[in-house]
Amino acid sequence: MAQTKKNLNIAMVGNGFIARAHSNAFHQVGHFFDVDYWLHTKIICGRNQAKLEAFAEQWGWEEVSLDWESVVGRPDVDIVDIAVPNALHSPIALAAAAAGKIIFCEKPLAMSTEQGEKMATAVRNLPNLVWFNYRRVPAIAFAKQLIAEGRLGTIFHYRSYYFNQSGTDSSKAQTWRYHRSEAGSGAVGDLLSHSLDTAMYLNGEISELSATTHTFAPGREIDDAVQVMTRFGNSSLGSFEASRFGVGRRNGNGFEIYGSKGNLAFDVEDMNRLEFFDATEPGPMQARRSLLVTGPEHPYSANFWKPGHIIGYEHTFIATLGDFLQALARKEQFHPNFDDALKVQRVLEVVETFAASRQWLKL
Amino acid sequence: MAQTKKNLNIAMVGNGFIARAHSNAFHQVGHFFDVDYWLHTKIICGRNQAKLEAFAEQWGWEEVSLDWESVVGRPDVDIVDIAVPNALHSPIALAAAAAGKIIFCEKPLAMSTEQGEKMATAVRNLPNLVWFNYRRVPAIAFAKQLIAEGRLGTIFHYRSYYFNQSGTDSSKAQTWRYHRSEAGSGAVGDLLSHSLDTAMYLNGEISELSATTHTFAPGREIDDAVQVMTRFGNSSLGSFEASRFGVGRRNGNGFEIYGSKGNLAFDVEDMNRLEFFDATEPGPMQARRSLLVTGPEHPYSANFWKPGHIIGYEHTFIATLGDFLQALARKEQFHPNFDDALKVQRVLEVVETFAASRQWLKL
Amino acid sequence: MAQTKKNLNIAMVGNGFIARAHSNAFHQVGHFFDVDYWLHTKIICGRNQAKLEAFAEQWGWEEVSLDWESVVGRPDVDIVDIAVPNALHSPIALAAAAAGKIIFCEKPLAMSTEQGEKMATAVRNLPNLVWFNYRRVPAIAFAKQLIAEGRLGTIFHYRSYYFNQSGTDSSKAQTWRYHRSEAGSGAVGDLLSHSLDTAMYLNGEISELSATTHTFAPGREIDDAVQVMTRFGNSSLGSFEASRFGVGRRNGNGFEIYGSKGNLAFDVEDMNRLEFFDATEPGPMQARRSLLVTGPEHPYSANFWKPGHIIGYEHTFIATLGDFLQALARKEQFHPNFDDALKVQRVLEVVETFAASRQWLKL
Amino acid sequence: MAQTKKNLNIAMVGNGFIARAHSNAFHQVGHFFDVDYWLHTKIICGRNQAKLEAFAEQWGWEEVSLDWESVVGRPDVDIVDIAVPNALHSPIALAAAAAGKIIFCEKPLAMSTEQGEKMATAVRNLPNLVWFNYRRVPAIAFAKQLIAEGRLGTIFHYRSYYFNQSGTDSSKAQTWRYHRSEAGSGAVGDLLSHSLDTAMYLNGEISELSATTHTFAPGREIDDAVQVMTRFGNSSLGSFEASRFGVGRRNGNGFEIYGSKGNLAFDVEDMNRLEFFDATEPGPMQARRSLLVTGPEHPYSANFWKPGHIIGYEHTFIATLGDFLQALARKEQFHPNFDDALKVQRVLEVVETFAASRQWLKL
Repeated sequence: MAQTKKNLNIAMVGNGFIARAHSNAFHQVGHFFDVDYWLHTKIICGRNQAKLEAFAEQWGWEEVSLDWESVVGRPDVDIVDIAVPNALHSPIALAAAAAGKIIFCEKPLAMSTEQGEKMATAVRNLPNLVWFNYRRVPAIAFAKQLIAEGRLGTIFHYRSYYFNQSGTDSSKAQTWRYHRSEAGSGAVGDLLSHSLDTAMYLNGEISELSATTHTFAPGREIDDAVQVMTRFGNSSLGSFEASRFGVGRRNGNGFEIYGSKGNLAFDVEDMNRLEFFDATEPGPMQARRSLLVTGPEHPYSANFWKPGHIIGYEHTFIATLGDFLQALARKEQFHPNFDDALKVQRVLEVVETFAASRQWLKL
Repeated sequence: MAQTKKNLNIAMVGNGFIARAHSNAFHQVGHFFDVDYWLHTKIICGRNQAKLEAFAEQWGWEEVSLDWESVVGRPDVDIVDIAVPNALHSPIALAAAAAGKIIFCEKPLAMSTEQGEKMATAVRNLPNLVWFNYRRVPAIAFAKQLIAEGRLGTIFHYRSYYFNQSGTDSSKAQTWRYHRSEAGSGAVGDLLSHSLDTAMYLNGEISELSATTHTFAPGREIDDAVQVMTRFGNSSLGSFEASRFGVGRRNGNGFEIYGSKGNLAFDVEDMNRLEFFDATEPGPMQARRSLLVTGPEHPYSANFWKPGHIIGYEHTFIATLGDFLQALARKEQFHPNFDDALKVQRVLEVVETFAASRQWLKL
Repeated sequence: MAQTKKNLNIAMVGNGFIARAHSNAFHQVGHFFDVDYWLHTKIICGRNQAKLEAFAEQWGWEEVSLDWESVVGRPDVDIVDIAVPNALHSPIALAAAAAGKIIFCEKPLAMSTEQGEKMATAVRNLPNLVWFNYRRVPAIAFAKQLIAEGRLGTIFHYRSYYFNQSGTDSSKAQTWRYHRSEAGSGAVGDLLSHSLDTAMYLNGEISELSATTHTFAPGREIDDAVQVMTRFGNSSLGSFEASRFGVGRRNGNGFEIYGSKGNLAFDVEDMNRLEFFDATEPGPMQARRSLLVTGPEHPYSANFWKPGHIIGYEHTFIATLGDFLQALARKEQFHPNFDDALKVQRVLEVVETFAASRQWLKL
Repeated sequence: MAQTKKNLNIAMVGNGFIARAHSNAFHQVGHFFDVDYWLHTKIICGRNQAKLEAFAEQWGWEEVSLDWESVVGRPDVDIVDIAVPNALHSPIALAAAAAGKIIFCEKPLAMSTEQGEKMATAVRNLPNLVWFNYRRVPAIAFAKQLIAEGRLGTIFHYRSYYFNQSGTDSSKAQTWRYHRSEAGSGAVGDLLSHSLDTAMYLNGEISELSATTHTFAPGREIDDAVQVMTRFGNSSLGSFEASRFGVGRRNGNGFEIYGSKGNLAFDVEDMNRLEFFDATEPGPMQARRSLLVTGPEHPYSANFWKPGHIIGYEHTFIATLGDFLQALARKEQFHPNFDDALKVQRVLEVVETFAASRQWLKL
């Protein structure tokens, strides 16, 4: 089999936290997924030579570069992976697209819908991926399967939250995530984007909404929290709340879905579990059950360990990449791609527009 | 001590589910609270003689009557307890007030703010109580105490939900709760009213809001679900969602509160517990703890059993009544009273007004 | 219906914590159970006149007496209820039996098997009851039903624990529970007796065992903790552990049962819930589900409130009494009775015998 | 830094499930731990050429061999890793020791205490490790730290369980784990060995015990379940139960520890959490808290991801190896080593000896 595998060289732009998760996936995907490619961690690009070298040594990147523009078009680069602040997604993606590369991009896709549309158009004929990694949490993939099988019946309510406490840590206030020019928005782009992608993956498109945003920290130029009420295309009601002032929550990213036949609940802090209530059971047996989604027939369990042997955060990136490479071999479209992320971007922009025109009733 | 206790005769209007909870409280309060009164379950009023007699036998009511109007003014009646559909709250309360009785009323107070204002004015100089019983869940009373002690710091988020599945049971569609003329509203008055009273008890008054309501059942004349986004007087953000289409939830009535120093979470299906996260602890010891609120120093634990020996739904009514009778002896104002319930009523009306003018953005 | 109800006068011996739970049940049973009797809380007996009078006033006992021996044979007494330290169970039960009364007795039945046998013989032709109240926790009654339906298949493991922290409270060291002459044993009679009754109710008789006891508190004359390994008649393995040094547990009384078709778990601190794992479900749907045992078809739910409206500790006594009175009307044997409690007593005695001859291997 | 790293070539014997976990650790340790070595996955040995080649391709082993005896002494091998059935641990370890290699061995160490003693003696002057990987679950390492700080006070009870359902799967009955000649024992060596290592790590040595074993499956030559009651050197009581007939549990490996100042609870199916009850808190604040052991100051959190971003089963192997390599660089003794595993082996043997002489009391 080894002879038939193709080599793919990766150039990654970025060397922060998320670049570690990507690097890990590049090394691990072949251990857990049957793929037709050898991935090579070829070049890592960034702004600080010393940090780049340390990162490259730790994660096995062959070269470092301070100049991504000279890298993304190199003939020995097959994949360009964008793991940098939001404001840079567009220029790198457009350059990589112009060079005909396979393109991976961190979320949220862009700084605006307009920008996102240009990016999506540019990559449309190239294999591409956006790192909405939570779709590959086995419990979320299993939720998708249960919904597709009609196990929830008609959906009535989709309820989402994403709370962490990052906004209360003043030591982080100088990082790019708190500047409009680099991040575009706060909880909206950082957290709500994840919630929306999961919601639209599980429950379909959003047809209309009302929203508000709020900034708790004095002088901060972006939002710290956002609330959204939506109607989905399937007529269900949606509620979303995301905040960086959720003191006590580290990565409190979850949802509840209520349908005519039951409900589901999930929280990424207990990501190996999915709560399921089956209202088609006989009355006295109806209860919320806590599925440990590591069983022999659960999504991705054949890839990783044994039943009861849980996986973690990093495996969502590995599974995203594994599925991408298998789709690539089959010449199939992978999801979530730039077009999927553009749909999220459109909702984010409407949220911000609506929030700006806030017209509540006073009591 | 027995000699000094005063007798209070009760006339209760209503013989449904909630009238059982009231009757139980009338019999039990003296067993668990040190009160200066002997309560007598004197007369029960309703519309069906046979049901009234059966109820009276089971719950020890001395007389039955089909004519509440002739009862509420009787000189041998001290307390009038209103446990009937919402549309009757106002006429009974006004008649009882005119007769100078002590008045207890089920929630929501009224069919409208205007009606509620008249009721509140009428009873203002009489001892009165509204059965927002959840304030006396020991865990909620303890939450109130923790907040008052500053254990949460500055409040950022108040998140509330009240989900049950009553709306999906078509066999109930003919009951008063599904008719506008008797109930006024659906999830709004039935569920959201409870959520709002708890919220305003714990987090203060609401200053402004946006809201939407929705009816899932075809042809139903009242709302099945409601969503509200609020700003509180203390600048915290509020989100409320209540639904009778929360399949799988029986009485899923809970909240989360996030502040600068920690968070709290509660659900009435596990009403002996309060979840508390103390962010002032050293980092590695910070965690959500599950307080079993039955301990020697918790609210009401001295009244009931021993630590670890839990109480249930009915005890919230007993504790409400116990506190009322103790306030009565001290000639102090009891809360929640008609004025408190009127504040809830005002919010309910703004919710319905706002929801009627729904102006969302389409995508 | 009222005309046909018979009057039953109760004489209760004891005025401590458990006497409150009994008194409550006597007053409440008619509110929640359809019974053919009017119970009258006639006479309460004890050793301290002032405490008796206060108790009688609070709980509505008509008379007080310092001399139980003159009371239990009175012709106007129908039921003798024994709610005193263990050493007094036998003399009161024998006297009440000699007078032909209905007899209720607290657990454990006796100070020894020999004593218990005499008591059981004496009451055999009289209606009798032992207050192993936990059998009437709805979740435990439902567990019994699930097992009877074969939902667990062949039982492999019965695992039981009962942990509280009472032994670490030195202020209680002078109470009767810490003296051999009054209590007979410590954790064995106080806690293990409950665990054994539940186990034998759910899983049948115990055929053989090995055990050990331990006293942590210096100078204490009774055991603080006990461990037992058993074989049941159905060939399953049992493990029991009970301790008064379980710091942090208030009433940590629970079990797990594993069978070929699934498992069950229960803890009385969350007594409205039963955890059930159904291994006959398709693989990916197998999970422990948390049954909220308040549903329309669950045991005792028709007696108390509505689905999702939980009950507490006291309701187990009410349900025990309700079932007893219904059995009495039908002239049927009630369980648990003195014979059932004698079976528990026999196991307790073997536990103590085995523990006394401790022959472990040293490492 | 790269220049100063030393190369270490690994020869692993075994290509089953656990060999995957080891291989993963060899590749991943450098990504998460700052170590002075480059590990090379040099040679994998086994019995089936095709399986070996597939494994080698997937996990990046350079060579395969059907003859471990010719491999373990090769000069280009630095580390011998033993990942084969228990009966082969001893010959491979002794051969590797004779060749002066660094030796890693799966648990349980040996087939008997006598065998284990010879192995421990042979490796005493060589760096060695036994894969009791659960010590490096961050939550267990944090439990160790809390106990060392005296946060539990005097220990009263150590309660352990390890339940899975592997024994009920008849398709596995032909594997080595069910044959005495290859496995030595069943639940005893497979599951109890893990429980004992964790217990002795956290609570010190065991001084005496009583035990029983049981085989549920007809005709099976090894035990399916084991129960042990122990006394620890610190005078606390221990109870252990392990079973392969715990239907519904996949990897139900946990413990509870009760001390004078609080308690701890852990289950590996939720391995990112540690439950802690602090009885030194003011009474009303005492509660079991659910620590999400991913925080900035928790063990190993600096190595892996961010707070709230959980890790899984495989990380315990990575952390074991990381700590070993750091100890190696410092020329310090690593734990758990062969001597630690020998202590576990001694207890296992006493358990089997005691169980063989079963002398329970019949009822």
